[in-house]
Amino acid sequence: MAEEQRKIAFICSKGNLDMAYPALVMGWAALGNGIDVTIFFTFWGMDMINKARVDHLEIPPVGNASMKMNLMGVPGYVGIPQFLGAFPGMTPIATALMNDKMKKLGVPTVREYLEMMADAGANMYACKLSVDMFGLKKEDFIDGVKDIVTASDFMDMTEGAQIIFI
Amino acid sequence: MAEEQRKIAFICSKGNLDMAYPALVMGWAALGNGIDVTIFFTFWGMDMINKARVDHLEIPPVGNASMKMNLMGVPGYVGIPQFLGAFPGMTPIATALMNDKMKKLGVPTVREYLEMMADAGANMYACKLSVDMFGLKKEDFIDGVKDIVTASDFMDMTEGAQIIFI
Amino acid sequence: MAEEQRKIAFICSKGNLDMAYPALVMGWAALGNGIDVTIFFTFWGMDMINKARVDHLEIPPVGNASMKMNLMGVPGYVGIPQFLGAFPGMTPIATALMNDKMKKLGVPTVREYLEMMADAGANMYACKLSVDMFGLKKEDFIDGVKDIVTASDFMDMTEGAQIIFI
Repeated sequence: MAEEQRKIAFICSKGNLDMAYPALVMGWAALGNGIDVTIFFTFWGMDMINKARVDHLEIPPVGNASMKMNLMGVPGYVGIPQFLGAFPGMTPIATALMNDKMKKLGVPTVREYLEMMADAGANMYACKLSVDMFGLKKEDFIDGVKDIVTASDFMDMTEGAQIIFI
Repeated sequence: MAEEQRKIAFICSKGNLDMAYPALVMGWAALGNGIDVTIFFTFWGMDMINKARVDHLEIPPVGNASMKMNLMGVPGYVGIPQFLGAFPGMTPIATALMNDKMKKLGVPTVREYLEMMADAGANMYACKLSVDMFGLKKEDFIDGVKDIVTASDFMDMTEGAQIIFI
Repeated sequence: MAEEQRKIAFICSKGNLDMAYPALVMGWAALGNGIDVTIFFTFWGMDMINKARVDHLEIPPVGNASMKMNLMGVPGYVGIPQFLGAFPGMTPIATALMNDKMKKLGVPTVREYLEMMADAGANMYACKLSVDMFGLKKEDFIDGVKDIVTASDFMDMTEGAQIIFI
């Protein structure tokens, strides 16, 4: 008797650049391992599939005690104190650093990853409630997005899947 | 042979308004699809079941690069820069916008959702460690909360479940 | 026929103190219940296993509407308004309050928890991409970390596991 196909479903609910990558990196690895991959974009995660937004995701340093610039490859810099993170200009700096780091490591951009994943057979859907909340329509999304579906549809699709909420 | 009952368990660890909704929307859909639903409230997610807090959940614009007011239905407004988000008054504005948007879309409030879900058979529990940490007791919680349980109890309850951490 | 061993895999992607604890508390409970536990540290979660960082995790009050100091045991204090959270000094105060509260409740520190879990057989791995991104090496990690693995390795390891992304 055939073993059941392994399935993973990601729920992308964040639009910050750092939290856009986990589903892409893991989803791409899963596809490479022959796993069936579904991605459901909801709330702020809609920015990842919004044609006008996907190339402009940012990484705000406030609210994240771990974001130490020295870790991002700036020698001698011992981190962005939380209150400095609230000053204008820090978000673009942190964003540029991360994008630059990813490029040097040969990591695709968010848009490139989504295109690769769509080509490799990932099933990508936008959440109906979020679409209504943000006043979006199918034409606002990148090509790989198959459809706009409800939470109930998502439940039907994910029977037997490992579900990862990001 | 009877197929096993599908089970989903949500762990609600956040008290921000935007991160209160995912478990409610998905949990409600799951209940409608005949799935057994358990919700475990922990850390800041305790605010969702705290009688004194549930109607006052907020959505802080700082630390979230995706929160663009134009997406929330304010035409011509191109977003809250991160540093503006740290000024007094922005959290109430973002909160009012989201609550208003949800109301217009006919989405229940967090309290209403929890009542509906309790009535529909969702199993809702508060985390013992968080209860101790915040100095709360069972009387502080809304009616639908069945009990205060440990992480070990939660592990017992979620054998075979799809676990979604929010 | 023997029943299959239950497996849980945690992905720790955050380095804030409050989001370091969920995998530790749940993972420890899981180990106690005889469940096989794997923890994969990635992105900001690398701070949890970084010898130089693990004892200095912080909890920034900005971006979290739920962090009310009165809940943390300061009587009469009705919370940190979001904009106050952005002032210097609030992160250390919130961090000290949480560490103190945990100590009073007899909860181990993050480092102690990780040592206990390694001794109890938890499988702990660092994410290869994050290691490259932050310019770290195996010697930077606490002893319990077994290896540096790719997302693809992680996919192989988590077949049949309940996956919890934090």
